[in-house]
Amino acid sequence: MNNIKVCLTPSLFPIYSDRTSVVVVVDVLRATSAICTALELGVESIMPVSTIEEALDYKDNDEYVIAAERNGKIVRGFDLGNSPTEYSNHTLLGKKMVLTTTNGTKAINIAKQDHIVVTGSFLNLKALTSFLVEMDKGIIILCAGWKNDYCLEDTLFAGALTKELIKNDKFYYDNDSTASSLILYHKAKDNLFNFLKDSQHRKRLAHLGIEKDVRYCLELNKSEVIPILIDNKLISHS
Amino acid sequence: MNNIKVCLTPSLFPIYSDRTSVVVVVDVLRATSAICTALELGVESIMPVSTIEEALDYKDNDEYVIAAERNGKIVRGFDLGNSPTEYSNHTLLGKKMVLTTTNGTKAINIAKQDHIVVTGSFLNLKALTSFLVEMDKGIIILCAGWKNDYCLEDTLFAGALTKELIKNDKFYYDNDSTASSLILYHKAKDNLFNFLKDSQHRKRLAHLGIEKDVRYCLELNKSEVIPILIDNKLISHS
Repeated sequence: MNNIKVCLTPSLFPIYSDRTSVVVVVDVLRATSAICTALELGVESIMPVSTIEEALDYKDNDEYVIAAERNGKIVRGFDLGNSPTEYSNHTLLGKKMVLTTTNGTKAINIAKQDHIVVTGSFLNLKALTSFLVEMDKGIIILCAGWKNDYCLEDTLFAGALTKELIKNDKFYYDNDSTASSLILYHKAKDNLFNFLKDSQHRKRLAHLGIEKDVRYCLELNKSEVIPILIDNKLISHS
Repeated sequence: MNNIKVCLTPSLFPIYSDRTSVVVVVDVLRATSAICTALELGVESIMPVSTIEEALDYKDNDEYVIAAERNGKIVRGFDLGNSPTEYSNHTLLGKKMVLTTTNGTKAINIAKQDHIVVTGSFLNLKALTSFLVEMDKGIIILCAGWKNDYCLEDTLFAGALTKELIKNDKFYYDNDSTASSLILYHKAKDNLFNFLKDSQHRKRLAHLGIEKDVRYCLELNKSEVIPILIDNKLISHS
């Protein structure tokens, strides 16, 4: 049996890292939803980088599209931010993407040293579950949170993924963060959008008019893509 | 209006510390329940220390009782651990206590630099609420957790305290950890003991036979004591 451990913020990752589990990085609003969408739209690979400077190195290279978000907004000088609904307005097929975001790409880079890393979002929940069942390893669900602090939407996704995984007898959980995530998801699942209406992140981003993005990111099972990190690039697992 | 912020583990405290809020340190199983009980039994003051070595300095001084817990057990050479139900078997009236525990006393020492510190437990929930309403300041509920990680029982207490505080129009909350704590407490409140049955801490301590302690620590409003830290010692606020 494999243990499912929910790491509520990147600050706590050193406590959870075990060098054997698969890490599922979660930044539902919006990095990991955007990653899933970009690969769905035919992006060949996504290189997650922690700083804007690293991303700018690829600015004048036609093979690449560069995407950068800080505090919810596209960074000046970049083609794209982390809005998945914007991605479909751009020609991404066959391109390589370089992506940096406030929380999600940092969480990926924290986890990649010692672990297999995939990314999760409501969009690819079911496909990801099947993949993890097939992998048959321990799982750390790493919530990217907001600037190292706890956030509700990533915790809800952790609960949703746990709920799916424990349907299979390969998985169990015994830690309090996983139990709490599951309880919160059960409470929220009938209307995720309304449940999150008062969340910090929603309020933080309210002035940016991203309601369309939020609704999109909370849709379940729209994609079969499993973003997996290979040689520092996220590609679609097949 | 004063904000109620729940800090889910001591690891996150640097994000929450604001130099103005009152910090309520919570280690329900069992340090802050033991602190409340010791003061209720007439201990004059409790000095929380982080290390066993510091506590041992007071070993041969008749004015003091020394109490130390690590991993749920009394440390060899000490009079007491952190079991509140054991405290009534000792003569504590008028004594000074020196206390070190795995999580709770460390959380107190993290918070004390820049904040007024009080300790909370289900035992003194109502009295603490009245005190905080009277203080009329922002509140950080600092969950001691387990070795810097999240734990359910302290989060439930954070939810219980939030529920009481927001009955008063001096208080509000806007962060996700406070919202989550409140939801979890609402789910748990009708039977805290059963709700926590499968929690990590309960399982961790099951072999120690502390069920009596757990039942005691989950009783509401048994004490009017408000432990407040003054000059590095917890005394009963009056």
